Amino acid sequence: MTVLGLGDMGSALVRALLKAGYPTTVWNRTADKAKPLVAEGATHATTVAEAVAASRLVIACLFDYKSVTDVLDTAGDALTGRVLVNLTNGTPGQAREFAGRYDVDYLDGGIMAVPPMIGTPAAFVFYSGSRSAYDTNKQVLEAFGESLYVGTDAGFAALHDIGLLSGMYGMFAGGLHALALVTSAGVPATTFAPLLKRYITSMAGYVDGMAEQIDKQDYTINVTSNIAMQSAGYANLMLSAEEVGISPELLAPLAPLMARRVADGHGHEDIGGVVELLKKGKK
Amino acid sequence: MTVLGLGDMGSALVRALLKAGYPTTVWNRTADKAKPLVAEGATHATTVAEAVAASRLVIACLFDYKSVTDVLDTAGDALTGRVLVNLTNGTPGQAREFAGRYDVDYLDGGIMAVPPMIGTPAAFVFYSGSRSAYDTNKQVLEAFGESLYVGTDAGFAALHDIGLLSGMYGMFAGGLHALALVTSAGVPATTFAPLLKRYITSMAGYVDGMAEQIDKQDYTINVTSNIAMQSAGYANLMLSAEEVGISPELLAPLAPLMARRVADGHGHEDIGGVVELLKKGKK
Ligand SMILES: NC(=O)c1ccc[n+]([C@@H]2O[C@H](COP(=O)([O-])OP(=O)(O)OC[C@H]3O[C@@H](n4cnc5c(N)ncnc54)[C@H](OP(=O)(O)O)[C@@H]3O)[C@@H](O)[C@H]2O)c1
Ligand SMILES: NC(=O)c1ccc[n+]([C@@H]2O[C@H](COP(=O)([O-])OP(=O)(O)OC[C@H]3O[C@@H](n4cnc5c(N)ncnc54)[C@H](OP(=O)(O)O)[C@@H]3O)[C@@H](O)[C@H]2O)c1
Repeated sequence: MTVLGLGDMGSALVRALLKAGYPTTVWNRTADKAKPLVAEGATHATTVAEAVAASRLVIACLFDYKSVTDVLDTAGDALTGRVLVNLTNGTPGQAREFAGRYDVDYLDGGIMAVPPMIGTPAAFVFYSGSRSAYDTNKQVLEAFGESLYVGTDAGFAALHDIGLLSGMYGMFAGGLHALALVTSAGVPATTFAPLLKRYITSMAGYVDGMAEQIDKQDYTINVTSNIAMQSAGYANLMLSAEEVGISPELLAPLAPLMARRVADGHGHEDIGGVVELLKKGKK
Repeated sequence: MTVLGLGDMGSALVRALLKAGYPTTVWNRTADKAKPLVAEGATHATTVAEAVAASRLVIACLFDYKSVTDVLDTAGDALTGRVLVNLTNGTPGQAREFAGRYDVDYLDGGIMAVPPMIGTPAAFVFYSGSRSAYDTNKQVLEAFGESLYVGTDAGFAALHDIGLLSGMYGMFAGGLHALALVTSAGVPATTFAPLLKRYITSMAGYVDGMAEQIDKQDYTINVTSNIAMQSAGYANLMLSAEEVGISPELLAPLAPLMARRVADGHGHEDIGGVVELLKKGKK
């Protein structure tokens, strides 16, 4: 195996491969970062072409797509016919555009883990693109953690990755707002956190109901609280932020979206209908 | 026990009391709503004063604080010396102001459940205000679900309630964005929902780390991904929304807050530091 890029993530990938017993060749722009890995058993290549030539399976984990093309453009013909797995973060569109750039069997990946999680069961990685590249190399790739193949569209790994991060950042935003609110009123964040975690975890179940509404474009099913009532209650949420003197900016955008659903005659339906406005309302 | 207000929630509270074997007197502005409950064993009072006079423990569950005062102002002296438990939604400030209005032993409550959950172990209710009112009536109140007393400050039940709802709505906003994103790119919401639920649930654990950072005002502890890297990665999240043509409005506000932390020299720290900006930056 060859790994291009020995930042925090690339180095973690190399260690997982070595631990699983795979001979691994490494390259990095700043060659020094290869040293500890060589001490652990990796082979250092001084040029990209040499690194690529060393293995049938080439894994890139660099800063962004631009750095990947910067690096791979120097490989010359060495890439031809290889399996290229790109684990660099990007958008679905970037992945799709990149997929056709080189004469390789291309697999795109999205890593759902931080470096210390690599090689543990807590890590998982989305893959999309070449099915055969995935099937042939699945076992090697599982050195990194659980692997999930999500489709032949090279953009789908990034789509799934970004989708999950979107959900996570929404939750973080809600959590940050909540902790700002309660601490401003004198409740320690560490006292409130267990309640918050428990509540978020239990309410995460509602995502299933929303998903069914969205697929059926029918927001009258699975309604536990109608959006008119939720929209009215949301005013207290905004008002409470004002009372304790914190900025409501993280949670504010949901208020007008709910109000618009109500104004459009969907007050008796569920909050899932907000998705219709997000789809219509590209700003 | 007396329950004032027989909307969806008030009626659920009455049913839970009856089921637990407590004689219950009910009143509602629209008297008709008492009928099914009388058939199940409740006693109907035709005036508020009569309802209040019937029990030592008076529970109000009305539309908002204004409706509670509208109703209780008609009770005359009947309220004097009673225990009043107000389960009507409002802000911490509204609860505090209301707490001194009548000559009662006052307990404020925040119900973390929808009506069908009342009386099941899935429901829980925050209480704050008079400790003696809580201790004396805890057993009765537990007919509704788990009860959590959170302090003598009458505003704290609402504060905890709103805090949890803030976390939940952040998560919902993230979930709505994520589902809009993936469905716009052709992935069914119901296919993606199990992944989303699993990821949100596992990432909810990070709330503990954030809470510790916030209490210590030290955002260099528990750092798994520094905010400079997160802020850079967030650009892909915004760009992906643009690519599929959905509005980024629900998740957009976190971007400038992260960027501001980085610009202020906190790039090596964690995302918990955003709380400092929310506290400073009341808009
Ligand atoms: N760390 C995480 O938590 C995490 C999680 C999931 C996904 N990822 C993704 O994994 C990828 C790598 O992340 P990382 O944490 O390893 O980042 P990092 O520690 O900052 O490492 C960046 C790597 O990219 C190289 N690089 C940057 N620009 C280059 C260029 N123009 N030409 C050649 N090499 C270049 C760097 O080489 P030098 O050593 O020479 O600077 C280094 O090897 C990123 O796409 C990141 O989004 C990271
Ligand atoms: N439903 C939930 O999921 C839920 C969850 C947690 C907390 N809560 C809170 O529980 C409280 C009650 O909710 P609900 O679901 O029972 O609402 P609801 O079904 O809309 O019932 C509202 C109640 O308030 C009464 N009311 C409204 N304005 C009044 C006025 N000016 N004077 C006298 N009575 C008035 C109504 O009387 P009429 O019958 O005469 O209209 C009815 O009894 C609210 O504060 C709500 O936020 C609800």
